[in-house]
Amino acid sequence: VASPEAAFIALLRGAATEPAARGLMDDAAVLEVGGRSLVLTKDLLVEGVHYRSDDPAEDVAWKLLAVNLSDLAAKGARPVGVLLGFMLGGEAWDREFTEGLNNGLAAFGVPLLGGDTVAAAGPRVLSLTAVGEAPGPVPSRAGAGVGHDLWVSGTIGDAAAGLAMLEGRTPPDEALIRRYRAPRPRLEAGVAIAPLVSAMMDVSDGLLIDAARMGHASGVGVAIGLDQVPLSQAYLAAVGDDRAGRLRAAAGGDDYELLFAAPREAAPELLAASDRLGLPFTRIGRFEEGAGLTLSDREGPVPLPQRLGWEHGRG
Amino acid sequence: VASPEAAFIALLRGAATEPAARGLMDDAAVLEVGGRSLVLTKDLLVEGVHYRSDDPAEDVAWKLLAVNLSDLAAKGARPVGVLLGFMLGGEAWDREFTEGLNNGLAAFGVPLLGGDTVAAAGPRVLSLTAVGEAPGPVPSRAGAGVGHDLWVSGTIGDAAAGLAMLEGRTPPDEALIRRYRAPRPRLEAGVAIAPLVSAMMDVSDGLLIDAARMGHASGVGVAIGLDQVPLSQAYLAAVGDDRAGRLRAAAGGDDYELLFAAPREAAPELLAASDRLGLPFTRIGRFEEGAGLTLSDREGPVPLPQRLGWEHGRG
Repeated sequence: VASPEAAFIALLRGAATEPAARGLMDDAAVLEVGGRSLVLTKDLLVEGVHYRSDDPAEDVAWKLLAVNLSDLAAKGARPVGVLLGFMLGGEAWDREFTEGLNNGLAAFGVPLLGGDTVAAAGPRVLSLTAVGEAPGPVPSRAGAGVGHDLWVSGTIGDAAAGLAMLEGRTPPDEALIRRYRAPRPRLEAGVAIAPLVSAMMDVSDGLLIDAARMGHASGVGVAIGLDQVPLSQAYLAAVGDDRAGRLRAAAGGDDYELLFAAPREAAPELLAASDRLGLPFTRIGRFEEGAGLTLSDREGPVPLPQRLGWEHGRG
Repeated sequence: VASPEAAFIALLRGAATEPAARGLMDDAAVLEVGGRSLVLTKDLLVEGVHYRSDDPAEDVAWKLLAVNLSDLAAKGARPVGVLLGFMLGGEAWDREFTEGLNNGLAAFGVPLLGGDTVAAAGPRVLSLTAVGEAPGPVPSRAGAGVGHDLWVSGTIGDAAAGLAMLEGRTPPDEALIRRYRAPRPRLEAGVAIAPLVSAMMDVSDGLLIDAARMGHASGVGVAIGLDQVPLSQAYLAAVGDDRAGRLRAAAGGDDYELLFAAPREAAPELLAASDRLGLPFTRIGRFEEGAGLTLSDREGPVPLPQRLGWEHGRG
């Protein structure tokens, strides 16, 4: 993808010499320290880009935390602490933000370690760095092999449907709006299945674009059954189950579900973990020889939509 | 200091439960991992606040890196890697930025581990998280005791004089402008003296405000001899040696020198380290019973200026 972001990252790749950087191809850096695997990730949220100006400050704080913890989850890491980069704005907004952040930190059992606060004009830019520790192997994006299955946790498309509602495009449904504003990182699941998967990442920019990236990083093609993509009852009620509705879910983004590849033999253990966690895992596709993403449903091949997801990262 | 920043940090302090957070009072977090001390710091630079819109992109990148490494230096830590939070802007500016960052990373021997890139309008907000490892003790701000001396490395005021030149207030001097645009973190010195000091921080917001903060965190008063504050020949030539000129240096900020407290017995070893490093250390004051900052020069007590430095952090 020759986006401005990709071009910028390419210019920096020469400085990413450490194995920990994983060539800047992964969602997190992995630092081996004293025999332990530390996982570091840093995601920015920009007002008007990654969240709406009228989103409640509490939700923005929660989301900033959740999108970073979701990256840790996808690397099989438990959070150890976070550092906050905050742009001061109005007093009331700032106070609500701290309430949301404190709630989130308490909910996930994560301490705030430090950070920086600045006063500035312009759209708010919020930055969080999350530090985690992986008790086991740290899956990258790049390990999917030919014949491995592609799986996803939970349901897809809910957050995008919620966003469409906030934009006044469709009638509101509170549950879908909560999926957009207050995502739940799959921390417990990430740690549980990290030893079973061959590649893992979270779905932030959109299922299709993120699956294509996993295939690209792994040097294999990926075929997704659009009719296999798990949709919630709320999504089906709001958007419907036709091909257009399924494509909207699969390109929507902001899902913060786990997307992972695994050899077929891992299926029994994955399903056992799913039962234990009370979190559905759905097999939605398979990796194959070649390159690129192909889609199909019960009626046959499905042409790729023009837009597979967000290009500049949604967290 | 009841600034908006201080009020915001107070609201977050309840979540900073981990000893690593040091109560959000210090410049960095210290995480003990597998018997090793990791030091984490995160500083933001905002266009128009922490750097000038006409500062060359290469210098902005260098400065973003340097101000964060300076925090590591003050904690006696060697850099292990950095994560970048970048807001895309113009293609040429972005490319120059990567050149400056790559130069800085190479100069300090630090790898880029990862980060995040976003596209957004408004003033640029740049964020860096630096990870370091301290081979020995990690000095906090809070360890200065009554009778300890206050020391500073290098010279003070050069960067503020350079900034005044860029703002057209005084005729330009290239060396002073370089001190503003391209500070040198005192990494080698920080690691060398960390075992000798009782408290250490870097001078970013201004010598006076930073020394007052060290005294406050340590629960002691601090008395500074304004005439002892080390000034460069270039500063003296540009600004002069009168009381007003010395106060301007001491409240100027952006120095990124080491400010440290040490018991008197440590003086011989500190001076030996200074010789070895080729970096002057100057004793500029002393900690005493009580609270607050007092200033004097050869003529007697000096009233504190209204402004002791920058309130919102300069990096």
